[in-house]
Amino acid sequence: MYRTHTCGQLRITDAGATVTLAGWVQRTRKMGGMTFVDLRDRYGITQLVFNEELDADLCAEANKLGREYVIQVTGTVNERYSKNANMPTGDIEIIVNKLNLLNISDTPPFTIEDNSDGGDDIRMKYRYLDIRRNAVRKNLELRHRMCIEVRNYLSNLGFLEIETPVLIGSTPEGARDFVVPSRMNPGQFYALPQSPQTLKQLLMVAGIDRYFQIAKCFRDEDLRADRQPEFTQIDCEMSFVTQEDIIQTFEGMAKHLFKALRGVELTGPFLRMPWREAMKRFGSDKPDMRFGMEFVELKNEDGTVNFFADKAGFAVLDEAQYVGGIVAPGCAVYTRKQIDQLTEFVKRPQVGAKGLIYARVQDDGSVKSSVDKFYTPKQLIEMKDLMGAKPGDLILIISGPDAMKARKQLCELRLEMGARLGLRDKDKFALLWVTEFPMFEWSEEENRLMAMHHPFTHPMDEDIPMLDTNPEAVRADAYDMVCNGIEVGGGSIRIHDPKLQAKMFEILGFTPEKAQEQFGFLMNAFKFGAPPHGGLAYGLDRWVSIFAGLDSIRDCIAFPKNNSGRDVMLDAPSCIDQKQLDELALIVKNQ
Amino acid sequence: MYRTHTCGQLRITDAGATVTLAGWVQRTRKMGGMTFVDLRDRYGITQLVFNEELDADLCAEANKLGREYVIQVTGTVNERYSKNANMPTGDIEIIVNKLNLLNISDTPPFTIEDNSDGGDDIRMKYRYLDIRRNAVRKNLELRHRMCIEVRNYLSNLGFLEIETPVLIGSTPEGARDFVVPSRMNPGQFYALPQSPQTLKQLLMVAGIDRYFQIAKCFRDEDLRADRQPEFTQIDCEMSFVTQEDIIQTFEGMAKHLFKALRGVELTGPFLRMPWREAMKRFGSDKPDMRFGMEFVELKNEDGTVNFFADKAGFAVLDEAQYVGGIVAPGCAVYTRKQIDQLTEFVKRPQVGAKGLIYARVQDDGSVKSSVDKFYTPKQLIEMKDLMGAKPGDLILIISGPDAMKARKQLCELRLEMGARLGLRDKDKFALLWVTEFPMFEWSEEENRLMAMHHPFTHPMDEDIPMLDTNPEAVRADAYDMVCNGIEVGGGSIRIHDPKLQAKMFEILGFTPEKAQEQFGFLMNAFKFGAPPHGGLAYGLDRWVSIFAGLDSIRDCIAFPKNNSGRDVMLDAPSCIDQKQLDELALIVKNQ
Repeated sequence: MYRTHTCGQLRITDAGATVTLAGWVQRTRKMGGMTFVDLRDRYGITQLVFNEELDADLCAEANKLGREYVIQVTGTVNERYSKNANMPTGDIEIIVNKLNLLNISDTPPFTIEDNSDGGDDIRMKYRYLDIRRNAVRKNLELRHRMCIEVRNYLSNLGFLEIETPVLIGSTPEGARDFVVPSRMNPGQFYALPQSPQTLKQLLMVAGIDRYFQIAKCFRDEDLRADRQPEFTQIDCEMSFVTQEDIIQTFEGMAKHLFKALRGVELTGPFLRMPWREAMKRFGSDKPDMRFGMEFVELKNEDGTVNFFADKAGFAVLDEAQYVGGIVAPGCAVYTRKQIDQLTEFVKRPQVGAKGLIYARVQDDGSVKSSVDKFYTPKQLIEMKDLMGAKPGDLILIISGPDAMKARKQLCELRLEMGARLGLRDKDKFALLWVTEFPMFEWSEEENRLMAMHHPFTHPMDEDIPMLDTNPEAVRADAYDMVCNGIEVGGGSIRIHDPKLQAKMFEILGFTPEKAQEQFGFLMNAFKFGAPPHGGLAYGLDRWVSIFAGLDSIRDCIAFPKNNSGRDVMLDAPSCIDQKQLDELALIVKNQ
Repeated sequence: MYRTHTCGQLRITDAGATVTLAGWVQRTRKMGGMTFVDLRDRYGITQLVFNEELDADLCAEANKLGREYVIQVTGTVNERYSKNANMPTGDIEIIVNKLNLLNISDTPPFTIEDNSDGGDDIRMKYRYLDIRRNAVRKNLELRHRMCIEVRNYLSNLGFLEIETPVLIGSTPEGARDFVVPSRMNPGQFYALPQSPQTLKQLLMVAGIDRYFQIAKCFRDEDLRADRQPEFTQIDCEMSFVTQEDIIQTFEGMAKHLFKALRGVELTGPFLRMPWREAMKRFGSDKPDMRFGMEFVELKNEDGTVNFFADKAGFAVLDEAQYVGGIVAPGCAVYTRKQIDQLTEFVKRPQVGAKGLIYARVQDDGSVKSSVDKFYTPKQLIEMKDLMGAKPGDLILIISGPDAMKARKQLCELRLEMGARLGLRDKDKFALLWVTEFPMFEWSEEENRLMAMHHPFTHPMDEDIPMLDTNPEAVRADAYDMVCNGIEVGGGSIRIHDPKLQAKMFEILGFTPEKAQEQFGFLMNAFKFGAPPHGGLAYGLDRWVSIFAGLDSIRDCIAFPKNNSGRDVMLDAPSCIDQKQLDELALIVKNQ
């Protein structure tokens, strides 16, 4: 060992001890005849002292140390004259009598401080320096602790972690696969798993009963912000269970993790909300429940609400399929400029609304709105009452010809208002289960029904008869766990009956031949006594980022890729040798 | 939940309780008016009883159950009349009053028993049925427990598990990479890691101090028996350490694992043996120390031993560079046929010896050998004494023009004799560290020195001056952990000095440009204060197979590939759509 202690270990009780430390030079200061060096390692920082009077040569050596030089020192632990209460080792310093330079360093391209002066690009290129920063390293430590907690929790419940293969077969259903040419089978390709979905179902057929895996998954998608081509899933599956069993099991795990990693006690069962209700109340299948500001429907697609039944000559509302609003408490004071900003916000292409209607509730209870000329003051007050707005509140209304689209626009507005009002506190956690998802969604592109989750999802038992008559109304026995408006995990009860699975493929437009070609291995397995089973998967990167209070998943990943799927540190991907291409029987087309 | 208990849970103390179980029908027996069903799940087998007199319809249903049908039953726990002491639930049975058929099953293609009638190929095709067998499933359970133990052990020592990327850059040095075409960067490829070697070194530069990862690794090699294209490593690295620190840390872990997984207490420090000594005494860099039968050199390449200094007219020995033997205790009684078998064994191409010399030590101490006509009885007795053979022993001698090759041949013979004499007991564990490996080995094929481990291995400090003068004599600061003749892990202290690393690349025949092109990211990182560091990696599959007492790693892997790199269950690799190829800008060459 190059050290007797780490740089975060020594305390006042160690005073007088002879110790050896090793680490990186964080900074050096020369003050009179003394040179102070902050020595850093993963565990902390310890102040070293070189005294010119005691050893001029040694002090001269210390004065030559640059930032990030690697050194080993031996010395005596000394009580500091001026203590630093902000650091755990702040009561002591080391009077150095021996200095061993282990390695020099070029000047780093950015400062190794909590608030670095490095931009994202340079930090990623020199990620090995970036990780030296507390701010990044503590996310990796949190990720490690989370994985340990997950594994021990599930293992104690009898779950087995089983590694499934990374080189598997390609299944064109779903997202795009990364493929791997096989040299031993020229012209053939492996695929990297988008998830271990079918393999974990095979493990249930295999009688494993309770499976989990913290597994790398791969999707060759055009990368939107904060997506990675490789990401990590906490993947779980259980046999002989219903939705209730899975929810109980993983709600327990979530509570354990919040307690263990954040010291947060989540009491009582998580809220559960059917998808339809979540859409109506929050315009989202992953509502942020840290704050209220629920939607009030003024007009909806099924006619159960229609405040604007009488045509007022205002086409926007007269012709809308949906009109809904939220009440921003205390925001009647918003200036014209602030309201214009909100209007611009909802009109951004990412949100896509045509415009925003607003109404200020005055102190006297009257309403000043952007649609005063179409409605009587009495109508506006009725609307205000319906909205539940009080004097001083601002009513914001979105309308549109497509109810689901309008709800999603209103959802974006609600989240924006929540942020503006400081209601989205990163240290507050609101969890819920969203259930009863639609089984299918219509794809305009493919002109067929698509599985909203995947083709193995079990319908809710009571909806099975509708598979033949009205498949679009069938709800899935599926569930998502949502935290602070983010889907952290989701899953479903799976189909275990080969006949029901065959019907599902039929509804999804697979010919029996195509179903056999793509999923034959699974359908064949199901002929040999598949047990009822279900499971779920968490996005690990995302969940760590919530625990870490980060907006992006990138700093929860040691070596992430950029939005073009490149690792700028390794400079990958890159061209390969002609010899490699030849061995794989591949030709790269000229672009 | 479909059950109140598992099939392995109920005991005599549960008698009288009403329970619900779910599982697979292992077998049914009809005896008089009773039908007995063995119900199986991961946890055990419970006997169900259906009584025709009590409920004829239910009993008739039970009689229709086939092997591997999935059922749910409710009934009363009853003390058995004839108990079965061989199974944990053998004291009880369930008197069933409700039977729910959950799924039917085709007749499985092999029996789901400890000793299955299925051959390897059919077992792999229906691996999901194979895993239902105790014999396979318990290996996966062992693997799970081993991973949990490793993770908790290392985590408690401050190691952080950090996921390194799977999509990295290709480095032609070493084995062949699997590559992944990048759609977003046409003509460019990712590579799958052969190991996280360079990435873990970057994590040391990043100040992580103690890293580990149970990591998937990939090598596109022509598969020898018992190699897999994807395999799993326990990968570890530490900063500010010497070889001694690493050995202490991981010897501790090995002892913990043997205790936790096998109940075996390994006392005292593991033996350590320099590579050169291991080669001389056992002809192997991974000697099986469960038994003796050490080599005795009669003639060696450096002339320090030369029993056959006087030419005897027997060219085989006269001209050999090496003559060495082992003493097989009590084997003087071997028949001519048995000795012929041994001769055939060493002449197999996999061993490659030209022949075998033997000498029986008679009861009176005289020697009867296959070379009696070349040597006097006195010479043969001298040789016997040198060999340390006693009356009743059989001396077996191998010679050859290349000492190292002859030693390896003699090693194979020693292992064969160990097996024949029952000295390679799977429940006995002999561990040691082999150290002081040569730094380089000469490659005839490449006509240059190659790194015996990898180009980042640190030379032993005292040998550094020889890098310039006699590189082939330089020993590496490297170490392998060996168990029962199998290398379970290995590693080294790494180079942290950029100048020494540059010299190493030079010796290995890299131009500075080529070194920069392939390992630039690492060499650049080393400019910013790399700490002294080292580590090691274990082959998880192999180590589990030792704990499990298996000869092959295949049954420690849930879904292994065959010797052509195929997953016969998934039928992967396979052809992909033209659309996929087009997106990747690839053309498959006609073969």
